[in-house]
Amino acid sequence: MPKEFTMTRRVQFAETDLAGIMHFANYFRVMEEVEHAYFRSLGLSVAMKLEGVEIGWPRVSTQCQYFSPIKFEEELQCHLRVTEMGNASLTHEVEFTGPDQRKVAAGKTTMVCVKRDQTGFTSLRIPDLIRQKIEG
Amino acid sequence: MPKEFTMTRRVQFAETDLAGIMHFANYFRVMEEVEHAYFRSLGLSVAMKLEGVEIGWPRVSTQCQYFSPIKFEEELQCHLRVTEMGNASLTHEVEFTGPDQRKVAAGKTTMVCVKRDQTGFTSLRIPDLIRQKIEG
Amino acid sequence: MPKEFTMTRRVQFAETDLAGIMHFANYFRVMEEVEHAYFRSLGLSVAMKLEGVEIGWPRVSTQCQYFSPIKFEEELQCHLRVTEMGNASLTHEVEFTGPDQRKVAAGKTTMVCVKRDQTGFTSLRIPDLIRQKIEG
Amino acid sequence: MPKEFTMTRRVQFAETDLAGIMHFANYFRVMEEVEHAYFRSLGLSVAMKLEGVEIGWPRVSTQCQYFSPIKFEEELQCHLRVTEMGNASLTHEVEFTGPDQRKVAAGKTTMVCVKRDQTGFTSLRIPDLIRQKIEG
Repeated sequence: MPKEFTMTRRVQFAETDLAGIMHFANYFRVMEEVEHAYFRSLGLSVAMKLEGVEIGWPRVSTQCQYFSPIKFEEELQCHLRVTEMGNASLTHEVEFTGPDQRKVAAGKTTMVCVKRDQTGFTSLRIPDLIRQKIEG
Repeated sequence: MPKEFTMTRRVQFAETDLAGIMHFANYFRVMEEVEHAYFRSLGLSVAMKLEGVEIGWPRVSTQCQYFSPIKFEEELQCHLRVTEMGNASLTHEVEFTGPDQRKVAAGKTTMVCVKRDQTGFTSLRIPDLIRQKIEG
Repeated sequence: MPKEFTMTRRVQFAETDLAGIMHFANYFRVMEEVEHAYFRSLGLSVAMKLEGVEIGWPRVSTQCQYFSPIKFEEELQCHLRVTEMGNASLTHEVEFTGPDQRKVAAGKTTMVCVKRDQTGFTSLRIPDLIRQKIEG
Repeated sequence: MPKEFTMTRRVQFAETDLAGIMHFANYFRVMEEVEHAYFRSLGLSVAMKLEGVEIGWPRVSTQCQYFSPIKFEEELQCHLRVTEMGNASLTHEVEFTGPDQRKVAAGKTTMVCVKRDQTGFTSLRIPDLIRQKIEG
């Protein structure tokens, strides 16, 4: 750690708002897309089954700071770093950079590993398979 | 039949796009909100359980015609009419009217009643309870 | 201050995800809806024109903590409190409560008043009209 | 004509709903993404300026038929064909295919070329530059 991952993502028309820029809530969707692409890059999925248990990763907290707007069809570079892995929780940060290397935004998410079943979610120690992949 | 239902719905900021109007794909979300509010008005839910069976209503087809744009904070009047109920399928139309009574859009959706379980969806005759409520 | 405002908002189908609960990013959309409803309750709009100037409120930072999931068709009670008003910036917090009074989530947003024109955004002292309405 | 374009697009978590599949309204967003990628592949943009005129493409009508659901992290192959170009209008169809070549959905959109300015939209003959690129 920190484990890193980078992805490029174009701003889509439906993600803009009447101010002509990407709507602030859509950064959270992109942040999640980066996280899931990162999991896939490790051969994992955020919605995987391990030994018959359906794993899930609900959010505990998430935040974003905005430095500069980004427009339709511009490309966001999204750089993820895992900054903390606890017993059941995982924290990562994502830096968003614009086409001219300008700082666009920075996000941070803490999520918790759970077992999902009919009754809901139960907190779960991050399984070793996942832990080892993230620790690299 | 036709069974009718009317609802008013304000256009939200996140639903607009850089052209300053409600994004065309959001009409489909609003159409679905009207349909679900209609079901609730009958004491039903689109995600209900009947005799242990989880009911679902996946779409078969959906369409929308656009006559005039609508802007942030304007109110859409949404008028739903059920136009056809088959063995397993249900078709409804929604007319969208703007604040000055101008015609904004008109949509149409056909969906099919299914039983949802682990293996997926199985087509289901619309249960009598639902059928009677819709027939009024 | 703090100025307060409360609104009830039902969770829509399209806002859920495969885990069966409202997707975490949608809290930011709801937070914005509450803020805009609050502005309207004061006779204001977040997209208003004052003396020929188009006002906007881009976000500086936003965050949310999640305590308990909420499901399709459940009603969220959303309680907004303005907690800080600076020269150009405005901070508010929103508490989300579920049907059984359980604490669902809590968000916080800081935004800045700007003048919007062809060249982009310019930071602006919060106009007196808006300031007075918020101070009550 | 028909001019064709193909793109692959992974289903994101936020695009699923509680039924565990991509929400039906999101096909319209993907359809638009394909259309915009097609325009870019021709060296065009749907939000371009030509000789000082801001061009836009509001929808006249759009529809989708659904054959088979698609799930989180599956890849949709999206195949666009322009089927009609009138004086101001453009129609295209998109076929969505799943990972195992199964037919997932098929959409169709008619949009109209407009000049966008302060007063709104004015219908516009499709400019020759765009017409030639589409005719190939």
